[in-house]
Amino acid sequence: MSWNTFGRTLRFTTWGESHGPAIGAVVDGCPPGLALAEEDIQPFLDARKPGQNKFTTQRKEPDAVRILSGVFEGTTTGTPISLLIENTDQRSKDYSEIANTYRPGHADYAYDAKYGLRDYLGGGRSSARETAMRVAAGAVARLVIPEVSILAYVAEIGGDAVDPANFDADEIARNPFWCPDAAAAKRWEALVDEARKAGSSLGAVVECVATGVPAGWGAPIYAKLDSDLAAGMMSINAVKGVEIGDGFGAARLTGEQNADPMQPGNDGPRFAANHAGGIAGGISTGQPVTCRVAFKPTSSILTPVDSITRGGEATEVRTKGRHDPCVGIRGTPVVEAMMALVLADHKLLHRAQCG
Amino acid sequence: MSWNTFGRTLRFTTWGESHGPAIGAVVDGCPPGLALAEEDIQPFLDARKPGQNKFTTQRKEPDAVRILSGVFEGTTTGTPISLLIENTDQRSKDYSEIANTYRPGHADYAYDAKYGLRDYLGGGRSSARETAMRVAAGAVARLVIPEVSILAYVAEIGGDAVDPANFDADEIARNPFWCPDAAAAKRWEALVDEARKAGSSLGAVVECVATGVPAGWGAPIYAKLDSDLAAGMMSINAVKGVEIGDGFGAARLTGEQNADPMQPGNDGPRFAANHAGGIAGGISTGQPVTCRVAFKPTSSILTPVDSITRGGEATEVRTKGRHDPCVGIRGTPVVEAMMALVLADHKLLHRAQCG
Amino acid sequence: MSWNTFGRTLRFTTWGESHGPAIGAVVDGCPPGLALAEEDIQPFLDARKPGQNKFTTQRKEPDAVRILSGVFEGTTTGTPISLLIENTDQRSKDYSEIANTYRPGHADYAYDAKYGLRDYLGGGRSSARETAMRVAAGAVARLVIPEVSILAYVAEIGGDAVDPANFDADEIARNPFWCPDAAAAKRWEALVDEARKAGSSLGAVVECVATGVPAGWGAPIYAKLDSDLAAGMMSINAVKGVEIGDGFGAARLTGEQNADPMQPGNDGPRFAANHAGGIAGGISTGQPVTCRVAFKPTSSILTPVDSITRGGEATEVRTKGRHDPCVGIRGTPVVEAMMALVLADHKLLHRAQCG
Amino acid sequence: MSWNTFGRTLRFTTWGESHGPAIGAVVDGCPPGLALAEEDIQPFLDARKPGQNKFTTQRKEPDAVRILSGVFEGTTTGTPISLLIENTDQRSKDYSEIANTYRPGHADYAYDAKYGLRDYLGGGRSSARETAMRVAAGAVARLVIPEVSILAYVAEIGGDAVDPANFDADEIARNPFWCPDAAAAKRWEALVDEARKAGSSLGAVVECVATGVPAGWGAPIYAKLDSDLAAGMMSINAVKGVEIGDGFGAARLTGEQNADPMQPGNDGPRFAANHAGGIAGGISTGQPVTCRVAFKPTSSILTPVDSITRGGEATEVRTKGRHDPCVGIRGTPVVEAMMALVLADHKLLHRAQCG
Repeated sequence: MSWNTFGRTLRFTTWGESHGPAIGAVVDGCPPGLALAEEDIQPFLDARKPGQNKFTTQRKEPDAVRILSGVFEGTTTGTPISLLIENTDQRSKDYSEIANTYRPGHADYAYDAKYGLRDYLGGGRSSARETAMRVAAGAVARLVIPEVSILAYVAEIGGDAVDPANFDADEIARNPFWCPDAAAAKRWEALVDEARKAGSSLGAVVECVATGVPAGWGAPIYAKLDSDLAAGMMSINAVKGVEIGDGFGAARLTGEQNADPMQPGNDGPRFAANHAGGIAGGISTGQPVTCRVAFKPTSSILTPVDSITRGGEATEVRTKGRHDPCVGIRGTPVVEAMMALVLADHKLLHRAQCG
Repeated sequence: MSWNTFGRTLRFTTWGESHGPAIGAVVDGCPPGLALAEEDIQPFLDARKPGQNKFTTQRKEPDAVRILSGVFEGTTTGTPISLLIENTDQRSKDYSEIANTYRPGHADYAYDAKYGLRDYLGGGRSSARETAMRVAAGAVARLVIPEVSILAYVAEIGGDAVDPANFDADEIARNPFWCPDAAAAKRWEALVDEARKAGSSLGAVVECVATGVPAGWGAPIYAKLDSDLAAGMMSINAVKGVEIGDGFGAARLTGEQNADPMQPGNDGPRFAANHAGGIAGGISTGQPVTCRVAFKPTSSILTPVDSITRGGEATEVRTKGRHDPCVGIRGTPVVEAMMALVLADHKLLHRAQCG
Repeated sequence: MSWNTFGRTLRFTTWGESHGPAIGAVVDGCPPGLALAEEDIQPFLDARKPGQNKFTTQRKEPDAVRILSGVFEGTTTGTPISLLIENTDQRSKDYSEIANTYRPGHADYAYDAKYGLRDYLGGGRSSARETAMRVAAGAVARLVIPEVSILAYVAEIGGDAVDPANFDADEIARNPFWCPDAAAAKRWEALVDEARKAGSSLGAVVECVATGVPAGWGAPIYAKLDSDLAAGMMSINAVKGVEIGDGFGAARLTGEQNADPMQPGNDGPRFAANHAGGIAGGISTGQPVTCRVAFKPTSSILTPVDSITRGGEATEVRTKGRHDPCVGIRGTPVVEAMMALVLADHKLLHRAQCG
Repeated sequence: MSWNTFGRTLRFTTWGESHGPAIGAVVDGCPPGLALAEEDIQPFLDARKPGQNKFTTQRKEPDAVRILSGVFEGTTTGTPISLLIENTDQRSKDYSEIANTYRPGHADYAYDAKYGLRDYLGGGRSSARETAMRVAAGAVARLVIPEVSILAYVAEIGGDAVDPANFDADEIARNPFWCPDAAAAKRWEALVDEARKAGSSLGAVVECVATGVPAGWGAPIYAKLDSDLAAGMMSINAVKGVEIGDGFGAARLTGEQNADPMQPGNDGPRFAANHAGGIAGGISTGQPVTCRVAFKPTSSILTPVDSITRGGEATEVRTKGRHDPCVGIRGTPVVEAMMALVLADHKLLHRAQCG
């Protein structure tokens, strides 16, 4: 894996900055013969795109994707698929004030320390805008794994969690929070709106479940399915934690409590529980693959925070650009995309070795 | 990265099964000119090795490492360093009963589903015995990053956490739990002993802190320092969750609470907090790099658990082999090793691009 | 390395088909802080571009490159550099006759056997048009190795070789053949023109010399400098052979004849000969790095050749599209680019391990 | 691919020095379920091993291989296969004189320039002894491609070529030169013996043919089958040139002469010629895959050659250790092994993408 490339067999490379002319991805290793058109990708981008309601950033980007290669007469050819989205709503003036200042909590200082320069326009390469290309690449990955269904949703915002008893998958697309619990969605509306008005921000936890993954995907030791999921999820902007199955909760259980007993089933074993999140020894067990992803509150807030200039002098930063009060919301389609990308990669990887 | 290889620039490949003649690692890409002898590696293996007290498995392995290549007259040459440990205490009879049965919670079923065969001796390749080679490789990695100090410790066993107010780094090596809190160590003695006697097992949380990491290590987007740490930690046996900095806790904070304000310092900024765990945008900030790792309770318990045979028939499994009542304890030196391996890799990776 | 990616540290990925909307490359791992603009790349593309004289294909492509990312205010940022060239002169009708037929000697049959489909427009991904992106990426690579000068030229066309006694580097750019021997250029004019008029084609040998490469680049065993050069050159369309230094000639020498004696020099040894082509044990010696590359005659000829249809029936193929009578000529800037890409990659790779 | 690792899907990593305690390889990605024992590997090592007759080095090494992992009850498990050979006949005193001197033509100076040190014992890592592990790994690779037959032979020694009219595959194993032409073998006996007695050395050309390769292996653009073959062959010690099919000869043909006409066949096309060496556009065509590899004469000769000391002073070097008068001879099984390794890798790679 290279620096801007993810995957082992189905690999994608992303490029582009927040305020450059365009962003893009190259998906390499996609099997030939799959029907693929821009319409297969666009709905996933639409689900992620900004400016759709008052709970997300007001940057308006149509995020219209173009396929520039790898498809001939509507079918993938096995050659690299180049995807491109033009940036259209770059308000660069929003950023002029911070050209010489580091925004605390953002990557500004770290990038400068590494590269010796400061692309101050919207965070440059460190902007979450990059995740649009993961969503686009993820739409291609989904075609590789038609046997798998993936569902991500927000399980918690600002510490307020959904009630599992209220879980309703159909509810998820009905509210602006990807929330599976109608009651929680109601509460979050007030919660997020309050944060938005205050120029504050909130963290969130996103859960993702993939059903239909057959037993046998994942490759020990250093291409374990859970290891690759952890890498993929942790690489999403603002993510600070990843759990597989019960995650940190498992650390509080005994071996008896954490057991996933197996019973004879029709097609492989029937499991009496899924504490493991569908992965044992790095390999899928045939149970649903589950993970939880923690998003921090975005560091872009109106309250002034102590910072320093590039020259090392004390200053204060208030973030005035357009930002999400809760980045975890728009992170949800990205989590789904990363799940698809990791699973599709492992399907092909498994096929390579095990036929 | 290949299946049994980890790292981008400083890469290591491990091989070997729990009950084969030996296990080993090949460390490739190590800079030349470093003083290296077996005595530099052995203490780290001794810290991890089994059978040292009643709180870990009673398998007796001297885990004596041999360096077979890559060192000439006491100095690394820049060529691959081959490390080998012979297995000496394989009691294969302990496993004969499960040759035809899957141990629930172990990788048995998943491996069989993937590879179509069953190496029933101690879990074969899925055994945590493999982690000895990470510890050995990690000892080499430490030589590459003399500027960094790494400290891992157990922060929680069975839900009983250390009290930060009692934190004493010197205490860690004084008790069999790598516990930095003398009072907690005392409590854990009873807790773990009780689990051991009951043939039960306990989960644990391990924390790891690396100080001395300069700002600038880590490479966005898909070689982020936190992404590679997540992959490395999640690949350790029994690990189910990884957090960087405040991790899931950050998801419950507001942007104001989660801010890491910067003030002018002597050598880079002085940070007023470290919620981010020393990493922003995937790149180190110069603060301590911190992570937390959740270990599940081992699935090897004396209580019978429902399972199935290879033929698909119902059965029960009780684990009678020698096992750790709390694998997180022996996982602590492994977490430290993975931190060293990821940081050393990124030091070299940074040097490649940024000179 | 992935399928459409080349390089270890400085990696580039190309995408695009002969008759798609565009072709492109993503260069990843480029050091930050280098001045880079489209004008730094365009001259190299102009040197390769088709339609410049009667000795190359008459396809007219301006091959105007755009930089879409990785450069901020005229300077590389260390993030991926996306390069894009639009295709403008696709005469797809030229190919309609062969939609159902395999052109002998071309990749048509092999691609169909592999992927199960037939992108018949100009060879699709197998077209030499892809090499434009290597030239563009190579222009970036040159900025990474300012200490190195690279010179490629045609040494032989249709078996007619230049006379080393006539070698004049200044002559190379003065004729349409990149020929360093004015007398040979004169002869080739007649030779190539005759082939062109007859609808025939000629093979060629290209030589490439890189001076200024310091001793120490290249990494044994499987990242040897000569091994990577061989891979890079052999991946160019129509290339069938690669030699380093004396190449096959060395197989006819004795050890005494092939010796490269060393004498004391001012800055490293002074070598009395360079049979080795500047590489020993896969590592540069400080001498000029030299290689020779054999291009076959293009398979696109007017003489009918036996072939089969996709359905397996006998047919004949005459190639009527626009083609080069001697692809080695336009391959010369591509050889130069690959040399630059391999050397730049190895400079960074060396820096990673050896500081 | 890492520095000491070759392959994309079926990868092998070698380690070890000429005069260290052992050499080894780790083969990763091998499919499970293949019968594998040491007896499957040993014959190939015996074919390469030194000291078998007066035409090869007199170093006596039994080269007995041990399998340390990856095989359970006689069957590959899909986990890494560790192969180890102990070094037994290291006469280190032969080398004491050159501890401070560079042998011209060897990698001595280049390694020192790169790594800043001098492993003078038999060339250390740069010794052709490493190729034993490729032969061992190649024996495993052969099991992955039972449909393919590979035959390598020496086609030319010191400029004296075999006569194609005399080609007899059965003859190859009957003489010490892997020569398919009994008359040439006779001539070479005198030729090589003369070189041996004079302390001189001779170059050679090895040819290799793989039959049974189906159409469709190889992956454009940068994982072309010919590109990977070129990399693999060029990485063998003393190799200076690689040709696929007609190679440099193709550069002297016209398009008409170089055509490989296709006619209807029973199972894919029937080709009327194979100038292309079984590869078009980087993908196998179903024809035999052929390549030619040029070995230089070894630089170890008794005639004194000018050189310098590590301190930069003038000196002379005569090589007194045990050496091959024609390294191409023992290179023949290595060429065969590399062909097997590349083809097996590509079989799995093809399966990943194209099912």
